[in-house]
Amino acid sequence: MTEFRSIVAETGEPHGEPLAVNGPADVAAACAAAAAAFDTYRATDRETRAAFLERIADEIMAIGDSLIEAYMAESGLPRGRGEGERGRTVGQLRLFADVVRKGQWQQLRIDPALPDRAPLPRPDLRLRMIPVGPVAVFGASNFPLAFSTAGGDTASALAAGCPVVVKGHPAHPITGSLIAAAITKAVKDAGLPEGVFQHLVGPSNELGAALVQDPRIMAVGFTGSRGGGLALAKLAQEREVPIPVYAEMSSINPVLLLPEALKARGEALGTAFVGSLTMGAGQFCTNPGLILAVEGEGLDAFVAAATGSVSEAKPQTMLTTGIAAAYAKGVEALEGNAGVEILAKGEAGSKTTGGAILFQTTAAQFLADKAIGHEVFGAASIVVRCKDEAELASLLEGLEGQLTATLHMDDADEAAASRLLPVLERKVGRILVNGWPTGVEVCHAMVHGGPFPSTSDPRTTSVGSMAIDRFLRPVSYQNFAQGLLPAELRDAAYGDGAPRLIDGALTL
Amino acid sequence: MTEFRSIVAETGEPHGEPLAVNGPADVAAACAAAAAAFDTYRATDRETRAAFLERIADEIMAIGDSLIEAYMAESGLPRGRGEGERGRTVGQLRLFADVVRKGQWQQLRIDPALPDRAPLPRPDLRLRMIPVGPVAVFGASNFPLAFSTAGGDTASALAAGCPVVVKGHPAHPITGSLIAAAITKAVKDAGLPEGVFQHLVGPSNELGAALVQDPRIMAVGFTGSRGGGLALAKLAQEREVPIPVYAEMSSINPVLLLPEALKARGEALGTAFVGSLTMGAGQFCTNPGLILAVEGEGLDAFVAAATGSVSEAKPQTMLTTGIAAAYAKGVEALEGNAGVEILAKGEAGSKTTGGAILFQTTAAQFLADKAIGHEVFGAASIVVRCKDEAELASLLEGLEGQLTATLHMDDADEAAASRLLPVLERKVGRILVNGWPTGVEVCHAMVHGGPFPSTSDPRTTSVGSMAIDRFLRPVSYQNFAQGLLPAELRDAAYGDGAPRLIDGALTL
Repeated sequence: MTEFRSIVAETGEPHGEPLAVNGPADVAAACAAAAAAFDTYRATDRETRAAFLERIADEIMAIGDSLIEAYMAESGLPRGRGEGERGRTVGQLRLFADVVRKGQWQQLRIDPALPDRAPLPRPDLRLRMIPVGPVAVFGASNFPLAFSTAGGDTASALAAGCPVVVKGHPAHPITGSLIAAAITKAVKDAGLPEGVFQHLVGPSNELGAALVQDPRIMAVGFTGSRGGGLALAKLAQEREVPIPVYAEMSSINPVLLLPEALKARGEALGTAFVGSLTMGAGQFCTNPGLILAVEGEGLDAFVAAATGSVSEAKPQTMLTTGIAAAYAKGVEALEGNAGVEILAKGEAGSKTTGGAILFQTTAAQFLADKAIGHEVFGAASIVVRCKDEAELASLLEGLEGQLTATLHMDDADEAAASRLLPVLERKVGRILVNGWPTGVEVCHAMVHGGPFPSTSDPRTTSVGSMAIDRFLRPVSYQNFAQGLLPAELRDAAYGDGAPRLIDGALTL
Repeated sequence: MTEFRSIVAETGEPHGEPLAVNGPADVAAACAAAAAAFDTYRATDRETRAAFLERIADEIMAIGDSLIEAYMAESGLPRGRGEGERGRTVGQLRLFADVVRKGQWQQLRIDPALPDRAPLPRPDLRLRMIPVGPVAVFGASNFPLAFSTAGGDTASALAAGCPVVVKGHPAHPITGSLIAAAITKAVKDAGLPEGVFQHLVGPSNELGAALVQDPRIMAVGFTGSRGGGLALAKLAQEREVPIPVYAEMSSINPVLLLPEALKARGEALGTAFVGSLTMGAGQFCTNPGLILAVEGEGLDAFVAAATGSVSEAKPQTMLTTGIAAAYAKGVEALEGNAGVEILAKGEAGSKTTGGAILFQTTAAQFLADKAIGHEVFGAASIVVRCKDEAELASLLEGLEGQLTATLHMDDADEAAASRLLPVLERKVGRILVNGWPTGVEVCHAMVHGGPFPSTSDPRTTSVGSMAIDRFLRPVSYQNFAQGLLPAELRDAAYGDGAPRLIDGALTL
């Protein structure tokens, strides 16, 4: 195949001109250019790199409304969401510009020489983080802007000093190409080598596989399905030189309704829950796919309200017909599962849309059948009725790793919440109180990550400023003359605004 | 097998009482106890955990001379080395106690709520690092104290808040058991659960495999052979929940002799080199196994001096007869390699000892045959003669990842060194000037790590205070009431000495 088409999400029909498909030779050329650009790009000073990230943000805004129109057509998502996501995307780039300028990411450490130490003197030792090398980024279907071509992985890798080769998501090739052109213009205007950013497109998995297998790629960022993430991780492990894959894969995001909160506002919680469940047709990795609560009147009120709201829900356009089909298949499997009962079903979906659905089961059945706990990407969720807090806690212990867990609680639930916290910490990357897991803030204290299989590497986050750490590794310089040291490790650089750990003491 | 014996390195003969071999049931019991201890141990405050690490150091010193005697018998290493290594081991524990007290490892981040932000308010978000869970540590043969039962991996994992299950190295079971008893006493005296530290021993690989495969183990620290490290990494990847393996495996540690330095002191460098090469029978991961230089009189003088010193070298007791046999086999393979020439050979080794040997080859031959660049663990090294700096640089580009690279240089070599630095940074974890890579300082700015295959994960170090990061992962707390937050994230904890990133600004 040498060409493919962009598809309008709402109709499932192609639109626009045929698009060229990148092949293995393009992958090799892109990786060669990225490797060639690496030493030049990583040598840029903090101000140059920060200004470059801001320039990308400006170029994205300069595309104007054609970007939003392409976004809406290709994703089926509404204008407000598109504009909001664009804001998040440029805000993310500007956040990383600020992070780059502040310099903490360099983790500068200086242990001065101790020439008179006995029995042996200590040499001068200095450490900084350097970027790992060219990074492959896989755009996500459900965030055509904030988690795709110029999304979080690209922003954090560029911030770290890594050239980026994006494998654009085939569900939004026009959106991706507009963004890629904006970044390419920023690269050129900043006087950086072309290999700093490159964009490959095509509908096949082979393209992505070739990218991960290229020996010049040193790390991979991915957001998508469990199958896709595991396949890439396997390829990365089988390379002559294995590399890290940061795959954000699947999560059902348990929501715990604690007794006092349920008693006080079961009905309101039920309505609010369905708002979070159906937002964006449920196409969020943080979608609340699992409700856990102890039996009682409060839970009955919650279920009644949620049942009512789900029943009234209209089907929504899904990102692709493939995602709509996978959603229908996942729902069908649960409908056919004897351990699961249907509580409510919204108006049925179609080839391009998905309808909401709410299931119910018992803790015992949930624990007995792992399939009940697998992610169904879309507006499907399941209420698990527990006999008591002990059964709820043991269900949590049996859960797979998750991106988030949510506690709905009142002050009087605090003791119960404290008892549940240790297991939640072991199972998830972010714990919320009295909110909904959809809506991931891009800030410094965000963790969008979690134990396997929610991600392939719980030691990191894919949203927020800490994501820069994924693309860095430490190098130590022993007994270097000042002139040979990297600039930021020289004595003369003290006071440049970056913190330094000097002989173990953090100094600003 | 239910029993095995400790072996005297110098004779290859067993000594002491038969020792019980741990089996699969012991592995399961140890992992269950570690998992049961995890929540209690990780909840200890910084002072409690720091004092516990210091208590371990005190208990190790309290063992007295029987520890040094066991060490000498089992390793064949001299008293001075044993006493020095004990000092390093307790110093390492005290360094981590200091790190734990200072609290930077928690990476506390606080993004306060912005209730008036438009279009959406920002919730309060707070982040801390928590320990990953029970850690399996594999003791190394060549550092029976500093990199074994109470070595760097154990110290950094305990500092992070992870219970540790050590698979003691069968080459020094008595040394390991003395150390294990000291730690166990410290655990008990500190009032901590027994599962915080456990020690398993036995000569088989199955013991270690079972440990890595136990679902309760969440990370692995290993120092040893490439084959051993890769086997454990594979097992860890094939688990239902894959886990990180930090394996420090193999390195030949290139030493670059730059022209002006060679001209000025080729002979002195040759003599000093052999001192580093033969130290500890060459049994260091940082042993200088590769000398790179451009042809000329300086290199001739270096080679003449090194040849002389190697020829006079006496064989030294190796750690085990297995290591001595592997060394003899590795040397034999190089001796039989037509692309390699023998420059000098010390007095031949025996069943228990290894003699020094120095080879020579050309850059072209080195690049043509990867086998020449494989680590031979012991006092063997190879001089690679390059035609010019360009050939030397292209040889560096072709090298596998290494723990260290060393530059011997004069002021007039600085331009050449600057040209070579970018490739060295991409290839190694530590770069030294005018020193020798053996002798790894335990401090804050040390990196003992590097690109594959020197380690399985170049994003970390196994020596120095940064090693604590390997056993931590971030958790984010959203919209928590103060009373429900972990103590260190509450407003009331500000000023507890730990740095905090508040709204992106680092505050002490």
